[in-house]
Amino acid sequence: MPIADKMVGIVKSASMIRKMFEEGIRMREQFGADNVFDFSLGNPDVPPPPVVKETLLGLINDAATSHGYMPNAGYPWVRQAVADYLNTQCGVGMTADLVVMSVGAAGALNDALKALVNPGEEILVPAPYFVGYNQYAFICGANLKTVSTKPDFHLDLGAIDDAISKDTRVMLINSPNNPTGVVYNKQELDELGQLLEKKSQVFGKRIYLISDEPYRKIAYDVNVPWMFGVYDHTIVLTSYSKELSLAGERVGYLAVHPGAEDAAMIASAAAVANTMMFVNAPALFQQVVGKLQGVCVDIDIYRKRRDMICEGLAAAGYEFNVPDGAFYLFPKTPIENDVEFAGLLKEENILAVPGSGFGGPGHIRLSYAVREQSITNAMPGFKRAMEKAQK
Amino acid sequence: MPIADKMVGIVKSASMIRKMFEEGIRMREQFGADNVFDFSLGNPDVPPPPVVKETLLGLINDAATSHGYMPNAGYPWVRQAVADYLNTQCGVGMTADLVVMSVGAAGALNDALKALVNPGEEILVPAPYFVGYNQYAFICGANLKTVSTKPDFHLDLGAIDDAISKDTRVMLINSPNNPTGVVYNKQELDELGQLLEKKSQVFGKRIYLISDEPYRKIAYDVNVPWMFGVYDHTIVLTSYSKELSLAGERVGYLAVHPGAEDAAMIASAAAVANTMMFVNAPALFQQVVGKLQGVCVDIDIYRKRRDMICEGLAAAGYEFNVPDGAFYLFPKTPIENDVEFAGLLKEENILAVPGSGFGGPGHIRLSYAVREQSITNAMPGFKRAMEKAQK
Repeated sequence: MPIADKMVGIVKSASMIRKMFEEGIRMREQFGADNVFDFSLGNPDVPPPPVVKETLLGLINDAATSHGYMPNAGYPWVRQAVADYLNTQCGVGMTADLVVMSVGAAGALNDALKALVNPGEEILVPAPYFVGYNQYAFICGANLKTVSTKPDFHLDLGAIDDAISKDTRVMLINSPNNPTGVVYNKQELDELGQLLEKKSQVFGKRIYLISDEPYRKIAYDVNVPWMFGVYDHTIVLTSYSKELSLAGERVGYLAVHPGAEDAAMIASAAAVANTMMFVNAPALFQQVVGKLQGVCVDIDIYRKRRDMICEGLAAAGYEFNVPDGAFYLFPKTPIENDVEFAGLLKEENILAVPGSGFGGPGHIRLSYAVREQSITNAMPGFKRAMEKAQK
Repeated sequence: MPIADKMVGIVKSASMIRKMFEEGIRMREQFGADNVFDFSLGNPDVPPPPVVKETLLGLINDAATSHGYMPNAGYPWVRQAVADYLNTQCGVGMTADLVVMSVGAAGALNDALKALVNPGEEILVPAPYFVGYNQYAFICGANLKTVSTKPDFHLDLGAIDDAISKDTRVMLINSPNNPTGVVYNKQELDELGQLLEKKSQVFGKRIYLISDEPYRKIAYDVNVPWMFGVYDHTIVLTSYSKELSLAGERVGYLAVHPGAEDAAMIASAAAVANTMMFVNAPALFQQVVGKLQGVCVDIDIYRKRRDMICEGLAAAGYEFNVPDGAFYLFPKTPIENDVEFAGLLKEENILAVPGSGFGGPGHIRLSYAVREQSITNAMPGFKRAMEKAQK
């Protein structure tokens, strides 16, 4: 093969996703953009808060603003701002040297995995899970092992207990969750922390928890517990993609719990991994987010859409758990074959991603990062697809 | 170990570099910034051309400018702008689908290597070479194999002929070169192209050439030949770090020769690797560089510094090749032990990197991305260190 052997399969499945996107473009051209209802993409369409533009202009008009290299782990003052913010939120005693600024949450996760995981070790993740995790596991040469969740997508501690093996190096969780919208509660997380501690003792090997939290601030009427308060050996990572609607700008960070076993060494290794992969997080947007800790887009926009889509789909006979956070809904498909049901939706010009891609067959993922009008106008199509499937 | 086994050594050597930086900071505090002469960093200090600021302001004040995700390989219009520019420069028939926008040249190189190289295969690189190459080889699980150059740092075709093996997947070159400043000429590159073609036939396996060119536009009075005109199976990659002084913003690209074996598949695999590592190149600066193809900082600033440092060091008795490009000088050390000589320079408050780190022992690397005043004021120290060494 002209390309690396292991890339062949990955390129093939990526090309299927690309075909879906291209099909969406073709449909928009054929039917008109207003008549195609694309619920397939998690690309925030809510504009960044106005203060983002003000901050950008302020920085660009300031002759002292640099676009050059900084220390590879990020500007010290930005890392300090992140540590200070984390301390106001969860009082973990975070310090700047345990924070590494990264190229989005994807970059932070790659950093953390490269730092912690030996090739051949296992990363354990509750399914359904974000598709990108397969790729990040591939980058560090690890195996992604999935563990089932309860019917409401909350953690199944018994299943996790069974799934952890001597090869498990990292447990990876994502709450608020993509694709299910579930937010884990304090009790199940406390139990998870105790289980990870117990299993680390059993296997004589520290199991680290990585908490991937890009949707932390997109949560409705529920508290998103801090993993730092649950298990010391935790690395929290996130981005500003959703909370500031800056997904394309690629800025995020990871933060290592000060009480984690060998915390300083892990942060150093993650910073080195950062350097190896992309040198540093983008300079200008590091400076922007450094000045905007705690700022968030107006999540009432997402909440309203969530309520609209939930109401509409319930009336059309869909079964689902009302999401507590993120901007995804993960309804059951009325027929077992989710790919086939996505096909029925496509006949109604509705684009949805089959759940099998997320390790959740028998479901579809709907992103409600779309205009309200699209939700309203798509509902008759959702209803007809349901009726067709039930015939 | 708390961190992945293979990271241990890498973190250790990175911590040595960090110690050097910290020593620099400590020295600046002790002696005053004006009395410490730091030639260790390749961080462009020439400001970006004014049109960069204008373009940034134009984009930020345009309500239509997006900070969201775009196709992972980059904005189609930006990829087209790069292809158009390449065609004006070397008429290779480049198309937008063979261009992948990346997180700097480091990201582009990681993309290309991940796309092409199987774990255990070899990447062949002429020494001295940029230190980061070791890390990028590690990311894709390949072996970095070095091949010696001639005394003037030009390619030694005989040595390359001997060094290529059945495991060689990629030949990686960097011209203008970091750390030597050498620019390969058309004749030696033509011979390299012929040799790679011959060896690909011998081993029945295509050897690809990767040309890492972030310093292409920083060249003095010499033509930097296009590798696209030399060998079809070439991937060119670069960044805007040096030519627009945007090193911290992390934007660059790779471009696959349209005549390369399986060109389209390589570009697809590189785009997927992009996605796996960092999703996409930063949105705002992609749009900036898309509008600024062909723009470059004033290289006369670098040329003047080159002439100053060359003149001064020659008068102080240093031996070196006058660099044709980039902003580095790689003089011989008067004693064999380059680390020891770097120590003598440090006694004069001069920071230089020992050549051994670049696979070029018996040399030091000096970056002249520094103020003219630093060059002038450092010269007595350079002279004293030379005299001490010769005693």
